Amino acid sequence: MEVGEERVELPDGRIIDEFLWVRTREFAIVVAITPDGQVVLERSYKHGARRVAVSLPAGYLEEGESPRDTARRELLEETGYEAEEWKSLGSFTVDGNYGVSVEHAFLATHARRARDPGGAGHDDLEEIEVFTLPLSEAIGLIERGEVAQLSSAAALALAVVALPSAR
Amino acid sequence: MEVGEERVELPDGRIIDEFLWVRTREFAIVVAITPDGQVVLERSYKHGARRVAVSLPAGYLEEGESPRDTARRELLEETGYEAEEWKSLGSFTVDGNYGVSVEHAFLATHARRARDPGGAGHDDLEEIEVFTLPLSEAIGLIERGEVAQLSSAAALALAVVALPSAR
Repeated sequence: MEVGEERVELPDGRIIDEFLWVRTREFAIVVAITPDGQVVLERSYKHGARRVAVSLPAGYLEEGESPRDTARRELLEETGYEAEEWKSLGSFTVDGNYGVSVEHAFLATHARRARDPGGAGHDDLEEIEVFTLPLSEAIGLIERGEVAQLSSAAALALAVVALPSAR
Repeated sequence: MEVGEERVELPDGRIIDEFLWVRTREFAIVVAITPDGQVVLERSYKHGARRVAVSLPAGYLEEGESPRDTARRELLEETGYEAEEWKSLGSFTVDGNYGVSVEHAFLATHARRARDPGGAGHDDLEEIEVFTLPLSEAIGLIERGEVAQLSSAAALALAVVALPSAR
């Protein structure tokens, strides 16, 4: 993680000294949907939220890796699932003022369990429990506060918006 | 903004030294919908994304202020709108690993222009252009990459999911 400050000149000519910025690695996240309309979810300890929460498969981009390849790799490593059809749900700056990172969100359909999860690497603090739920019930988890992270809540809601069958 | 590192002991007993954290102020964001189904949007320069982008009214919580009061204040200050009915869309940790901040998202309906915008304070780097669009067209802006920030994309998509009439 990098933190710094810079001098910013705005379009109207004003100058802001010591504007802070934070930079962490960009990450990809995936809403993977099985042929029977279930979304692949994880339950694990998230230190940013200081609790166990439900989230989507996600991970940091490795050097030279495309966001879609990251999403595909993390889905397989964390959950053991592969998916046939991939569609971007967008790329978004995580913090509008400080920058922080970029989330690349994907919708992957025709997802199937290909192998046991494993090889998730040292990014993950804790064991991941993998489970599936109908997309509408996953949205219910957001409403009940069980999805702690903005990254997962955003991608799930964007997937519902993008999937006519889920609306 | 605060940045630090800490020693973390995981539930399984492993220790992580020098786990980094970042803390910025929590913020509230609002999807305000007019009686004719238009969402109140802003177009402004966002330094985190390094460009002009569309976003929702939002701002940092002031000392002792509830997230809902922040949302109400920022909506009025930034856009001149007030709204009658307020509903939480959830509170989410902005980064699952580093913490960073918490987004408190609200859906406000029966929104009406009450006065001219103004008094937005020094959080805002640049002039804000206020405009309204049908919610479905606002979602189109996300799909075309004109919503740069995860905070706004998430709240807009969560509002569509929460509003039966928009689905």
